[in-house]
Amino acid sequence: MTVLNPVIVPNPVVVLVRPQLGENIGKAARAMLNFGLTEMRLVTPRDGWPNPQAGPAASGADVVLEQARVFDSVADAVADCAHVYATTVRKRGVTKPVMTPEAAARAIHAGPERSAILFGPERSGLETDDVALARTILTVPINPEFGSLNLAQAVILVAYEWSKGRDLASPPLTDIDPPAPHEELEGMIGQLDTLLETTGFFFPPDRTPATKRTLRTLLTKPGWSSQEVRTLRGVLSALGGAKRPR
Amino acid sequence: MTVLNPVIVPNPVVVLVRPQLGENIGKAARAMLNFGLTEMRLVTPRDGWPNPQAGPAASGADVVLEQARVFDSVADAVADCAHVYATTVRKRGVTKPVMTPEAAARAIHAGPERSAILFGPERSGLETDDVALARTILTVPINPEFGSLNLAQAVILVAYEWSKGRDLASPPLTDIDPPAPHEELEGMIGQLDTLLETTGFFFPPDRTPATKRTLRTLLTKPGWSSQEVRTLRGVLSALGGAKRPR
Repeated sequence: MTVLNPVIVPNPVVVLVRPQLGENIGKAARAMLNFGLTEMRLVTPRDGWPNPQAGPAASGADVVLEQARVFDSVADAVADCAHVYATTVRKRGVTKPVMTPEAAARAIHAGPERSAILFGPERSGLETDDVALARTILTVPINPEFGSLNLAQAVILVAYEWSKGRDLASPPLTDIDPPAPHEELEGMIGQLDTLLETTGFFFPPDRTPATKRTLRTLLTKPGWSSQEVRTLRGVLSALGGAKRPR
Repeated sequence: MTVLNPVIVPNPVVVLVRPQLGENIGKAARAMLNFGLTEMRLVTPRDGWPNPQAGPAASGADVVLEQARVFDSVADAVADCAHVYATTVRKRGVTKPVMTPEAAARAIHAGPERSAILFGPERSGLETDDVALARTILTVPINPEFGSLNLAQAVILVAYEWSKGRDLASPPLTDIDPPAPHEELEGMIGQLDTLLETTGFFFPPDRTPATKRTLRTLLTKPGWSSQEVRTLRGVLSALGGAKRPR
């Protein structure tokens, strides 16, 4: 698909609904910022706000905490968002579409309106009334025999998936050196052949072509760089040193 | 290629290299089990093993901790694994292919041999020597202005990506021979090191560790099969033959 005028989609808002521990709010902030999310909203945090436990747990993600806004209700917190996702680990009594973090990330990037992602309190998760405000349920597919995601882990998985759709999240290119020109490899293979001939390695003679072919295949496989080929030629020279007439 | 009998790929092994806090080992176990990974290996955990701090932090993932095995070296811990991934956040001095968790998960599922994923100590991450043992670097693409993933978070992202492909494990694509188990490669590298020591190749002495690392990287790159490693050991024996007392 060609996109001529890509729409700027606002980054999604992370809404922590009735979070209990300041420490977990800090960890969620850290999880967010790792993947480029900065807008946190808090709905009636149990221990008030600001919370002195949050900062140390954020490990430097203070900008997220400083800009966090507090709301009295989930409805207020998502008032400016067109798409609301409710993160739950269990099936709820509400019938709504369920998405994985991957599918939700795609939908959020499709925009163009702002999205909010709700995360419930540490102990109990979102209430049915919270979920009712969302159009979509976001569930991380998890080991059915051991589902134990904490708040910051749920946040990090969602933020991670979202970040994949951004340019900066594209896979880092490999910085390995290109393979050496073939003649350099050939020179090394020739050096090895010569060395091995002096040791009687190629025996019996009628097997020599097949053995050489095996060695060539094996040495061609790595795609060694020029530098690597030079290093190996040094190794061969060292190993062959004993063969020189003395 | 049609695959009538898809190969069962063993689940990857999570190797915690010199982990510091028992609490973080427990959290890593919890992260693993959430996404169905159960095999943890520990390389010289700082505070010994078992560690009483691990259990409470595992939040019920005791089965992972109970089955965890302790090793004296990274090489021992990955001896039975054909593919080794080193998780790093920074670029290392070693030139190797870099994969995202997503790409690594696809490669691991392609199997058919067992993979190991290395995670470094909390504070410092993997050392260059640890990375040298791996064929591939695994890096989570992260906010370039705020990269602060802790151990359990790195584990959970990798485990999460792996879990996505579990049901639809893709058929093995290639029919080249699988890479040799790591211990076979290690044996060959040891043989070469010994040979080169007798030739005075490692000079000056203060460059020896770096030179050995360069050789290791270069010999780890191809992913040679067991047969290829045997052939090369024959080559080395032939080349070393002249060194034997006559």
